[in-house]
Amino acid sequence: MKKKILIVFAHPEQTSLTRTMVNTSIEVLEKMGHEVITSDLYAMKWKAVYDEEDFPVRANSERLSLIHESGNAYATQNQTSDVVKEQEKLLSADAVILQFPLWWYSMPAILKGWIERVYAFGFAYGYKNGTNEFRFGEGILSGKRAIVSVYTGGPESDFSPRGINGPIEQLLFPLTHGALFYPGMEVLPTHVIHSAAFITPEEVEKAKLIWSSRLHNLFTDTPIPFRSQNGGDYPDRHVLRDDIDPEKTGINAHIAS
Amino acid sequence: MKKKILIVFAHPEQTSLTRTMVNTSIEVLEKMGHEVITSDLYAMKWKAVYDEEDFPVRANSERLSLIHESGNAYATQNQTSDVVKEQEKLLSADAVILQFPLWWYSMPAILKGWIERVYAFGFAYGYKNGTNEFRFGEGILSGKRAIVSVYTGGPESDFSPRGINGPIEQLLFPLTHGALFYPGMEVLPTHVIHSAAFITPEEVEKAKLIWSSRLHNLFTDTPIPFRSQNGGDYPDRHVLRDDIDPEKTGINAHIAS
Repeated sequence: MKKKILIVFAHPEQTSLTRTMVNTSIEVLEKMGHEVITSDLYAMKWKAVYDEEDFPVRANSERLSLIHESGNAYATQNQTSDVVKEQEKLLSADAVILQFPLWWYSMPAILKGWIERVYAFGFAYGYKNGTNEFRFGEGILSGKRAIVSVYTGGPESDFSPRGINGPIEQLLFPLTHGALFYPGMEVLPTHVIHSAAFITPEEVEKAKLIWSSRLHNLFTDTPIPFRSQNGGDYPDRHVLRDDIDPEKTGINAHIAS
Repeated sequence: MKKKILIVFAHPEQTSLTRTMVNTSIEVLEKMGHEVITSDLYAMKWKAVYDEEDFPVRANSERLSLIHESGNAYATQNQTSDVVKEQEKLLSADAVILQFPLWWYSMPAILKGWIERVYAFGFAYGYKNGTNEFRFGEGILSGKRAIVSVYTGGPESDFSPRGINGPIEQLLFPLTHGALFYPGMEVLPTHVIHSAAFITPEEVEKAKLIWSSRLHNLFTDTPIPFRSQNGGDYPDRHVLRDDIDPEKTGINAHIAS
């Protein structure tokens, strides 16, 4: 069945591995019969800084409360047009792909700024009733799929279970769990290409095939089993129920065994 | 003894909790006899996006390799003046304090962009010989202390050991371990104020006292015991030695028990 897929990507250089793999995404998905839409953040000169310019019509012109102004702008249709356009893209998509180089163990600032500005109050958080009631598995982006494809400078061993950098899935937990699963998307395991700066043309071709197979399974692969907030695992104040994996604490406790 | 302390902070609103706590930092540290310098990223209109404009003189005008251009600009003194100024501030400081609101479980884009642009190749990474040999405990910022003070929207329970958000120290590991410890700084445990939007004036006064005591112990508190890369714990390809905490994997393995 034909689906619509949004690719959000962040790299300024056309010949970078990020852009090469974005081109592969478009090619493969279109060949599969899907419709692809893109947000090329560098080409769009995306405004990365979340500030008062995001609120041309202010609810309170004295004091800038970002949550308050965000909620007001969203509710009164006074958001800036670039933000509205990205929200519409998200709403129209069946799946969202994020592709970017890992910079200082997280996403580039321009992509972080895309989340900050597009994820309005009332839209991505404070959904439905202005509280934290509907989030982590239930939100405006419910029913959609998401996958992160990231390109690292360091070798795979640095990101191995006991490698000095920490595992990519834990480093990106604030993104996968905190920004993709939060408004309801099902998040697939992160796709990684290591040692991006040292990759050979042969390895690139191999990497394209591997990524292509991930794309073919975009709607069938099993998502990361993040525990949904309202599924019964967090009966009291968003704290994991005592009898669930009682020995676990931290990030890993929120992924079902 | 008089020390020099750099405060880097990111919030556009003067009356925000972030800015209130920054004012407390300045007041307390100056009263202690220290010299305080600041980087008010919003007031500076800090350029958050890392791109070709960071390299007015290019090593390769055809293809933008950020690592290559960064290394070249740093080595040939062709960095932009805003970046040079921040590097000089870092080098002159005995301690660095980062103060910011937690947005989508990480730092604001403007601060991420500060790291991306200021942390040049040859300066913060590729130190000394262009490899990964000197990092995680050994680097250009060795001997300095760092502390993160962060203000969250969510309540403390959401960040508790089994709270749905995950613990703050794990969410910020990419920053504390990956960006502060990486170039050599000793990082103190993160200071957090929860439920920032709902804080009462009385709680703010109490919060100032708690933060003030953290500031008094800035040079005496025990840092997070991150394992240094060249201290013997990672003898082979930056992977933790088999006999050290053999049951541990992931982020936590890199913090000594």
